Amino acid sequence: MESNIKFIDGGVVAPQGFLAAGIHCGLRKNKDKKDLAMIFSKNGRECAAAAVYTTNKVFGAPITVTRDHLKNGKAKAVVCNSGIANTCNPDGIEKADAMCKLTADVLGIDENDVIVASTGVIGAVLPIEPIKNALPALKDALSDTKQAGEDTAVAIMTTDTRKKEYAIEFELDGKPARIGLIAKGSGMIEPNMATMLCFVTTDVDICSDILQLALYEVIQDTFNMVSVDGDTSTNDMVSIMASGLCGNKKVTEKDGDYTKFKNALYIICEKVSRAIAFDGEGATKLLECRVLNANSRQDARKLARSVIKSSLVKTMMFGADANGGRILCSLGYSGVDFDPKKIDVIFKSSAGEIQLYKNGDSIEFDEVKAKEILSQEIIEIIIDMKTGKEFATAWGCDLSYEYVRINGDYRS
Amino acid sequence: MESNIKFIDGGVVAPQGFLAAGIHCGLRKNKDKKDLAMIFSKNGRECAAAAVYTTNKVFGAPITVTRDHLKNGKAKAVVCNSGIANTCNPDGIEKADAMCKLTADVLGIDENDVIVASTGVIGAVLPIEPIKNALPALKDALSDTKQAGEDTAVAIMTTDTRKKEYAIEFELDGKPARIGLIAKGSGMIEPNMATMLCFVTTDVDICSDILQLALYEVIQDTFNMVSVDGDTSTNDMVSIMASGLCGNKKVTEKDGDYTKFKNALYIICEKVSRAIAFDGEGATKLLECRVLNANSRQDARKLARSVIKSSLVKTMMFGADANGGRILCSLGYSGVDFDPKKIDVIFKSSAGEIQLYKNGDSIEFDEVKAKEILSQEIIEIIIDMKTGKEFATAWGCDLSYEYVRINGDYRS
Repeated sequence: MESNIKFIDGGVVAPQGFLAAGIHCGLRKNKDKKDLAMIFSKNGRECAAAAVYTTNKVFGAPITVTRDHLKNGKAKAVVCNSGIANTCNPDGIEKADAMCKLTADVLGIDENDVIVASTGVIGAVLPIEPIKNALPALKDALSDTKQAGEDTAVAIMTTDTRKKEYAIEFELDGKPARIGLIAKGSGMIEPNMATMLCFVTTDVDICSDILQLALYEVIQDTFNMVSVDGDTSTNDMVSIMASGLCGNKKVTEKDGDYTKFKNALYIICEKVSRAIAFDGEGATKLLECRVLNANSRQDARKLARSVIKSSLVKTMMFGADANGGRILCSLGYSGVDFDPKKIDVIFKSSAGEIQLYKNGDSIEFDEVKAKEILSQEIIEIIIDMKTGKEFATAWGCDLSYEYVRINGDYRS
Repeated sequence: MESNIKFIDGGVVAPQGFLAAGIHCGLRKNKDKKDLAMIFSKNGRECAAAAVYTTNKVFGAPITVTRDHLKNGKAKAVVCNSGIANTCNPDGIEKADAMCKLTADVLGIDENDVIVASTGVIGAVLPIEPIKNALPALKDALSDTKQAGEDTAVAIMTTDTRKKEYAIEFELDGKPARIGLIAKGSGMIEPNMATMLCFVTTDVDICSDILQLALYEVIQDTFNMVSVDGDTSTNDMVSIMASGLCGNKKVTEKDGDYTKFKNALYIICEKVSRAIAFDGEGATKLLECRVLNANSRQDARKLARSVIKSSLVKTMMFGADANGGRILCSLGYSGVDFDPKKIDVIFKSSAGEIQLYKNGDSIEFDEVKAKEILSQEIIEIIIDMKTGKEFATAWGCDLSYEYVRINGDYRS
C-alpha cells in the first residue's frame, strides 16, 4: 500500500459532495431489514460517472436502463433495492424506468441521471408501490453522517453476513482526495441470487472516459478475481460517481495523477474484493491464491482463478485436508499452457507455511503442521510457475455444508 | 434405442475373446475392497485398440505410458489399480512401466501391449510390491464368468457407491456382435481423486484408426457431457479393445457398418454416462439437461453443460426449490450467443412436468406441483432455444451436504 493512502470512516459519504440513506420499504417481509438505498450528489451537482456490468448474456432490466443512462458519462444519484432482482420479467424495463422516474421526481433531477440496480430473486415481479411510497422518506433520510453511510450499505445486502463499506484518503495534486464505496455480494462474483453490486463515490475531479478506463483496469485485478461459486450473476454492476469537489486539477489523460487515482481505486477495490470472498455464502475461510512468475498476467489470472473455483480445492480447505494434488489438477485444466515439472505449491497462514509440491512432484510434509495451517481463517495458496515474471491473486472461500443449505432453499 | 440392440449380462467379458478378474492386492487397507483389476484378450490374441485421455495439462504417469503403448493401435491386456493415482510423483513413469512389465511377464505378452491405469490419491507414491505379489493370483482368477466381470468392475471403484458394468448385443453384418464395459467415476467427469475410467471391450472386427474415430465421436455426446463437480481429472481415460471374434467383415471405413457400431457404442456409453452422473459424489438426484433447437450442436452442448455444472442449479435441485432464474443465468454465462427472449424452460420428472419460463420471462406456476416434480430421483431440465435444429443432453447431479463431507476429508 502506498504510504500516503489511509483508510477512513464514512463509506460512500466520506468523499465530499455525497449524501446517502437506506431504509425499509417493504419489499422484504422482515421490517428490521432495510431494502432500499439511495446515494445522491449534494444539490444535484453533476458527477462524472462510469460503470462496468455483468458479462452474462441474460441480464437484468436495471442493467439495460443504467447502461443507457450512463452513455453520456454523467449521473447524480443511485437507487437500489434488495429482495427482488427485477430480471427475466415481462415488465422489467418498465419497472426499472419507473424506479428512476420516481427517484428523479423526488430529488428534482432528470431520470437520465439516475443509476438503478436491483438484487434478489430472479423472475419475481417487482412491486413498485412499496418503493414509490418510501421514496419521500428515503429522500428525507439523506445525510452525510457515518450512520447514513452504514444504513445504505446495509440496505443493499442479501445473504451477506457483514456489511461492506470502505473509504480511503490519499493525496492528489497536493489536495486530500477520497474514495468511498459500499458493496454486496455473497453467492459471488458470479452469483445469481446474491448479485455482486458495488457503488463507488469519489471527490476527485476527473473526466468520465478516463474514469471509465480506471474502473475497467482496476476491476480486472480485483472484482474479476473473486469467485464464490462460479455463477456469473445477471445483475452484477460496479458504478462510480466523481463529484470533483476535492479541488485537484481535473484528470483528463493517463498521466501521473491518473496513476495515483487508479492505485487508490485499486486498493479500496482489493479491500472489498477480499471482504466479499470472505463473506461468501457459507464460507468459513478466505482463500487467497497467489500465482507467481507466470509467463503473462493473463495466464497468472487464469491459473489463480482456476484454483480458487475448484470445488475439490474448496471442500479440501473446508476440511483442512492438505491434498496438494488438487491444486496441480486445477491448474492443469485452467486452459493455460505450462510445464507441470516446474511448479512449487505452498500453503501459508498465520500458523506458518508448508511446501507440498516442488518441481511438480509431491514432497513429504508434516501432516500435523499442515492441518494447523489450514485450520486458520485466512489461507494463502502460493503457486510458483518459475517460467516468467507476471503474477496475479484471486480470492475465494471454502465450500461448506452451509453453502448447500443456503442455496438449497434460497427463496423461502 | 435401435430395435436390434439389447442389453445383456457380463460387462467386459460379454464380448467373445475376453477374460477378466479383480482382487484385493493390499493398496487399500480394507481387505474386503478389491483394488486390482485385469482384462485379458484370451490366448494373448492381438486386439485393435484405441483410447481417449484427460485434457488436463497435469496428467498421471499411467496416461503417458498407455498413450505410448497404444501408438501402434494394438493391445492385449488392461491392468488398473485403485487407491493411488500414481500422479505427480518423481517415480510415476517408473512405477507405471513396472506395472506393465510385471503384467506382461505373468501373461506371457509384450509390455507394449498393456494398457495401464491408476485411480486414487494424487501425489502419493505407488508401492509396487503389493501389485507384484498379487499378479500371479490375479492371472489365475481370470475368467469369462459373470462373477469375474463383476469383480473387475468392483476393483476399479473408489468413492463410487454402485458398480458400473454394462453389455449390449446388436447385429452387424448379419452376425451377433457385442460391446461390454466397466467404468468408475464419482467425483466426476472432471474429478480429481475420483477419476473417471472406462474400459470397453468388443468382439467386432474393426481397424484401430476407425475404432479410435468411433470412440472419439461417441465421447463428445456421452462422457464429455457428464459433470459432477467440474474438476477435470489428471487420470481420466476411456480405452477400447476389439477382439474381432464376432465374425463380421472387418470395418475399415466410415460405412454403414461403422455407423451401426458407432450407434451401439453410443448407446452403451450413454447408459454408463448417466450411471456415473447418478452416482456422483453425494448425489441424491440425476439431472438430465436437454437443450433443444439450438443453432449448432456445439452451442447445444455448451449450454447443457453450463446448466449442469452450476452450483446454484445443483443446490436448488438438492433442495427441490423451483428457482428457474438460475437456469437462465447459467445459460447466460455459457459463452454461447443467443436471444434470451426466446427461451422456454420446463422441469420434468415421473411426477409430471411444469413450465417455468416462456420466451425468457418467468411465468406463474403451481409451487406445490413444482416441489413434487423436483422431489423425484431423476429430473429433466428441458430448454428450448427456438432458434435452430440442434440438440444435446448433459448429465449431472445435485450438490449435497454429502459431497462436502466426502471431499472435505477425502484422504482419511
